[in-house]
Amino acid sequence: MIYFDNAATTWPKPECVCDAVVNTMKKYGANPGRSGHSMALSAARIVYEARELLAAFFNAESSRNIVFTSNATEALNMAIKGVLKPGDHVITSSMEHNSVARPLFALQRMGVEWDVVKCDLRGMLDPDDVKKAIKPNTRLIAMTHASNLTGTILPVEEVGKIARERGILFLVDAAQTAGIIPIDVQRMNIDLLAFPGHKGLYGPQGTGGLYVRETLDITPIKEGGTGSLSEHLEQPQILPDRLESGTLNTPGIAGLAAGIRFITQKGIENIRAHEQKLAGKFLEGLKHRKDISLYGPGDPTRMCAVVSLNVGELDSSELAYLLDSRCDIQVRPGLHCTPLAHKTIGTWERGAVRFSFSVFNTEDEVDEALRALDVICQGY
Amino acid sequence: MIYFDNAATTWPKPECVCDAVVNTMKKYGANPGRSGHSMALSAARIVYEARELLAAFFNAESSRNIVFTSNATEALNMAIKGVLKPGDHVITSSMEHNSVARPLFALQRMGVEWDVVKCDLRGMLDPDDVKKAIKPNTRLIAMTHASNLTGTILPVEEVGKIARERGILFLVDAAQTAGIIPIDVQRMNIDLLAFPGHKGLYGPQGTGGLYVRETLDITPIKEGGTGSLSEHLEQPQILPDRLESGTLNTPGIAGLAAGIRFITQKGIENIRAHEQKLAGKFLEGLKHRKDISLYGPGDPTRMCAVVSLNVGELDSSELAYLLDSRCDIQVRPGLHCTPLAHKTIGTWERGAVRFSFSVFNTEDEVDEALRALDVICQGY
Repeated sequence: MIYFDNAATTWPKPECVCDAVVNTMKKYGANPGRSGHSMALSAARIVYEARELLAAFFNAESSRNIVFTSNATEALNMAIKGVLKPGDHVITSSMEHNSVARPLFALQRMGVEWDVVKCDLRGMLDPDDVKKAIKPNTRLIAMTHASNLTGTILPVEEVGKIARERGILFLVDAAQTAGIIPIDVQRMNIDLLAFPGHKGLYGPQGTGGLYVRETLDITPIKEGGTGSLSEHLEQPQILPDRLESGTLNTPGIAGLAAGIRFITQKGIENIRAHEQKLAGKFLEGLKHRKDISLYGPGDPTRMCAVVSLNVGELDSSELAYLLDSRCDIQVRPGLHCTPLAHKTIGTWERGAVRFSFSVFNTEDEVDEALRALDVICQGY
Repeated sequence: MIYFDNAATTWPKPECVCDAVVNTMKKYGANPGRSGHSMALSAARIVYEARELLAAFFNAESSRNIVFTSNATEALNMAIKGVLKPGDHVITSSMEHNSVARPLFALQRMGVEWDVVKCDLRGMLDPDDVKKAIKPNTRLIAMTHASNLTGTILPVEEVGKIARERGILFLVDAAQTAGIIPIDVQRMNIDLLAFPGHKGLYGPQGTGGLYVRETLDITPIKEGGTGSLSEHLEQPQILPDRLESGTLNTPGIAGLAAGIRFITQKGIENIRAHEQKLAGKFLEGLKHRKDISLYGPGDPTRMCAVVSLNVGELDSSELAYLLDSRCDIQVRPGLHCTPLAHKTIGTWERGAVRFSFSVFNTEDEVDEALRALDVICQGY
């Protein structure tokens, strides 16, 4: 079986990730940060170490600026609803996932203004268009680091600079880039970084996080037991407690830490180079085919390892079904939870079939996918 | 090592739970409900089966009424913020955890009225007091099924009847009872049931859920990709999608399903009887001791297997430390994230030491704890 659905969740996970999860469940299964007994302290240490690893990985000021969430969507909701109030204006690109678009759609009804800056047909964004969209009440620019549909990398550094100069908060959705493209939140002027644990960071599903810049005031969307300041009915002000209510996913967090260690050991540059090579090979094998529509920049250096396409007039679900049932190749068809992006690149009606690669994919697998597309195109 | 901190999270987990988690990560590691390929469908089937098991376990109308969350706190926030609007009145008991109290404290600032019905020194609630607290604008009664501090079981059935008669929504926090005391949401007139996966249901940390009664309109606190109706920027109306945004914790949910199967196989009545016996034995061994203050009803049939106490004037943290360091017994001291309950039972200043039992604890372990308390009391 060939798994090319890594943009949805990476598979397989490194062996060390599975081991960390089960080891934590069996040996350190207490509730971290609640009781003070030795197993609870061991569990708390696991969480703390994971926080430290993530802080170093993204160059956060401190581990307290890393908040654990259950996925990137939760992190995005926390960030967006934590800083926007009625009357505020927010700017996004037209390549945003529903995890950004749907919370903003809900907030619009409560008086938040939202402008979408249009990207071009390849998903590219001109930072000047962001600048032009800024209004006196612009509080937030929220932008994906790379499109989950076309892989297009958006100009995060340039927009971060604009945001900082204008005193506007900058939220980056790193769903497709965390663990794949180096991110330095301080250098890139990122105030809020939402990331999944289970994609490029190779952690288990059920993990993710939000980086929150030091001193940034953020209103929680959830309150509850934090194990801290238990005598107060008011949610604590301190990070990460302010945004972490209820029992954490300790085994998942242990797995996420193992994922970060795996990446650091491999070297993120090497992972990026490998994935870039696979995407490049795949694009190269397809770009002269007239029966295949390719989306995105078509240049592996300007995208993460996500390639979407359609074959002739074939329905995207039909193509994915043929790849799965005949060739044992697993890809994702349809709308990819991103109607804005489909409208931008012109695939709103039929969707597209997405091939997405991880460090575990090989050039042989790419060759096999190219052959499979050959066979299907001939049959079709 | 003796682990008596099961009210925070149960440990150990049944072997089948750890196996289900790691098996799912290794064999069915795709994203459920997103792509249509075979591994994604296998992952979706795992989630569906878990939903079916939970629906049957709590006698929900259908599996679509079960929403997966990352813990009970998230479920409580979803329920409370999903139904209360400014101008609404809510009633709780005085034994509530901060996972109920803190969200309500935050909502008070937005114009929600909140009344706390006082329980007695043992944590017992008179349903008539709830009836008296009802006002024309009472929209919700939110109540714990059993106190996490004293174990006291609250009269959920009686209050459920009152709520239904008066057309008031009824939310039950089953953090201490799910998997331990049988719950039938339809018979008990429960509209919303919040439960953790990692306590009495023996699932992994990072799991929990919310039962939402059919036809109940609930506003989400998070929106995002649901894999359904992707073309719409509006969050879908259908359950469970409406309340489940972002990638689910599939391995955790698989583990939770294994936990439910474990309970069903053992028989919840047998688990309850076992835990009741342990609590009874522990209480019996302590009740004539003048140097020990016992809290709660003191009758194992009126409580879940949670016993809190203090020794003489000893600080609760000191006692827990002695139990851990000298006797290798792990318990929880302090305020237990429930200041309201501590005020109710009079332990606001010093907290209390909580012993909480699971199906894996034994009578021998209870004997050892009694001996350990003997030794500590003598030394003190």
